[in-house]
Amino acid sequence: MKIMITGVDGYLGWSLAIHLAKRGHTVGGIDNYSRRAWVGESGSQSAIPIASMADRLKAFASTFDQPLRFFRGDLTDYDFVCDAYRAFKPDAIVYLGEMPSAPYSMIDVHHAVFTQTNNVVGTLITLYAMKATCPDAHLLKLGTMGEYGTPNLDIPEGFFEIEYRGRTDRLMFPRRAGSWYHQSKVHDTNNVEMACRIWDLRSTDIMQGVVYGTRIEGMEHNDHLRTRFDFDQCFGTAINRFCAQAVIGLPITPFGLGRQRRGFLPLKDSMQCLTLALENPPNAGEYRTFNQFEETYSIMELAEKVQAVGREAGFDVPIRRLENPRVEAEDHYYNPDHQHLLDLGYRPTRDMEAEIRTILEDLRPHADRILERRDAHFPDITWAGERRRSAYLDDE
Amino acid sequence: MKIMITGVDGYLGWSLAIHLAKRGHTVGGIDNYSRRAWVGESGSQSAIPIASMADRLKAFASTFDQPLRFFRGDLTDYDFVCDAYRAFKPDAIVYLGEMPSAPYSMIDVHHAVFTQTNNVVGTLITLYAMKATCPDAHLLKLGTMGEYGTPNLDIPEGFFEIEYRGRTDRLMFPRRAGSWYHQSKVHDTNNVEMACRIWDLRSTDIMQGVVYGTRIEGMEHNDHLRTRFDFDQCFGTAINRFCAQAVIGLPITPFGLGRQRRGFLPLKDSMQCLTLALENPPNAGEYRTFNQFEETYSIMELAEKVQAVGREAGFDVPIRRLENPRVEAEDHYYNPDHQHLLDLGYRPTRDMEAEIRTILEDLRPHADRILERRDAHFPDITWAGERRRSAYLDDE
Repeated sequence: MKIMITGVDGYLGWSLAIHLAKRGHTVGGIDNYSRRAWVGESGSQSAIPIASMADRLKAFASTFDQPLRFFRGDLTDYDFVCDAYRAFKPDAIVYLGEMPSAPYSMIDVHHAVFTQTNNVVGTLITLYAMKATCPDAHLLKLGTMGEYGTPNLDIPEGFFEIEYRGRTDRLMFPRRAGSWYHQSKVHDTNNVEMACRIWDLRSTDIMQGVVYGTRIEGMEHNDHLRTRFDFDQCFGTAINRFCAQAVIGLPITPFGLGRQRRGFLPLKDSMQCLTLALENPPNAGEYRTFNQFEETYSIMELAEKVQAVGREAGFDVPIRRLENPRVEAEDHYYNPDHQHLLDLGYRPTRDMEAEIRTILEDLRPHADRILERRDAHFPDITWAGERRRSAYLDDE
Repeated sequence: MKIMITGVDGYLGWSLAIHLAKRGHTVGGIDNYSRRAWVGESGSQSAIPIASMADRLKAFASTFDQPLRFFRGDLTDYDFVCDAYRAFKPDAIVYLGEMPSAPYSMIDVHHAVFTQTNNVVGTLITLYAMKATCPDAHLLKLGTMGEYGTPNLDIPEGFFEIEYRGRTDRLMFPRRAGSWYHQSKVHDTNNVEMACRIWDLRSTDIMQGVVYGTRIEGMEHNDHLRTRFDFDQCFGTAINRFCAQAVIGLPITPFGLGRQRRGFLPLKDSMQCLTLALENPPNAGEYRTFNQFEETYSIMELAEKVQAVGREAGFDVPIRRLENPRVEAEDHYYNPDHQHLLDLGYRPTRDMEAEIRTILEDLRPHADRILERRDAHFPDITWAGERRRSAYLDDE
């Protein structure tokens, strides 16, 4: 299968390129190195050193006996996107080319506008470019479990059958996102669903949980195949950030009560799931939603897991709760469905401790790079819109 | 009350300025004359001649003994918007400053991107500007009944109580929009709801039906107080377009089966409803939705009404169905609630025939202006994305 990955220079994008090449697919990629710039703007860097795209491409070609066909450019440039699709002729497009950080989107009006414009326009342009150049291709669109928010209900996978005043219909389950970034994903979801409905495009919309991990199989061949690993307040996800904190002796810092529950999955499971969706595409005109995660945990449970595994690995750090910079429910019902991918054959890893151990071991040699950007660990982007560093709650 | 109207140069915006001034409110307005440009781009013009903003402002000031404080600029320019709000200090902002046409948004990728960017960014910037300059003001945001689409269920006003697998919650009713324009309104709705939730802003989100009519009381004092009236495929709404067709002897042209049902209301009822919302604002942090229309009709019923009233007025034209350029259900259940405004005191006009008669009489002296732009009556913007003129269905 010929698979085009937008955002191929990112955390998931680069990993997926490797995973798909290992499975014998032909891989193309688009990027403009925005992620490197945004992390730099956030005062941070990838804990694990990553190669330039030129070096990545060389290592890729020599390891997998196939080139990765790379297109450098901006996904909001319609002519560029059409040219790339015409040249590559994808069977599937994996759309990972968005600004993926809730805090980054909440910095100020300019970051809010950038986030929604970049994400919504990029997706809209891809829908038009697919229609013009590859209308039978499968759009695998990365959304987020955060689109749903935390309703006091079970969360189905995208759609639900409802009865209302004696009549029934199958409708999209209501979304209730909590940041401009998450809202941009809701906007994308609505746009993609409409494109399938009116243009007969086909799409899988992935509501992904929080991904963690430093590596997948295939990266061990060459240091230039390693993917990035962020730990700053904007681009570092919970478990990854906690591990980076442990490695440099900082307290592990859940926000608020720490009872927020979310779905999580290791990087290798994300690759497995995306591949299952790609290898089992929807029909023409079909728009389907997969909730993609392994298991739900509270943030405090994760902090305790990282603390326990860290201790065994020689990183003994306390857990200290931080004032929550976000506006979110800290104690809530959470029970999302996640059956579709299991039905397609998803085999969850079911060993979070082993994954955390690998992260800590991978980070150990790069502790200096994390220490260099120590300030990036302390959140100061608030949902209220002011920059104010969160205090430790136990100092109150 | 000090009320700022964005899009004050438009069909609803200018009418509302007059209506509010008559009720003793202080009126401000923002515009960059986009509507005039878009209608020109669509190869058309207002059937009723409208004055320049300079002449409008003079007529307004002399008629109502108060100036309309006008700010010329772009709603996607954050600094300009903040300066305007700081200078005017609004108690309420009526946000009518969007690109309001479904067909215009479907022309091509560039119009799709423009529509979503203009509307979503303009609203997002207003939310930030309100937060910075007038956080207690009431945002009266114009959405559309088209956000809901046509589910096989009753449509509540914005929210519904649902029971799902034995648990209950109050959630936003799922939207299912049918054009990039309508989707932009859904995106706005989601963004505005979130701003109320996390920033304690207050907003009324109006899901408005299709408005028709040439005038409201107050415009009779001075020709420079007249509001625009569009009849082209992009900016002419159903009844207005049918009336313009009758006046120049063209057939009245419902799309497809003509069984599409929508909510409709006369211009003067729209003014009455918006004013009720303004004079009964929500609480801080409250986000509420009003479905704003008088009654639902099928498009064919409206065509027949215009035909019958037209005959009496000497405009005897046939009804001829046109190939539907849109992708939409042509025969569907439709039963939206519309109780909130009635509870606030809305007194519906309940005389569509009289309104149609007034439109026809108002258009009669301007038939030459409609004839000059005769081509604008024939739709050629298709939801499939190609320009192709719709054929008469009875020619098949």
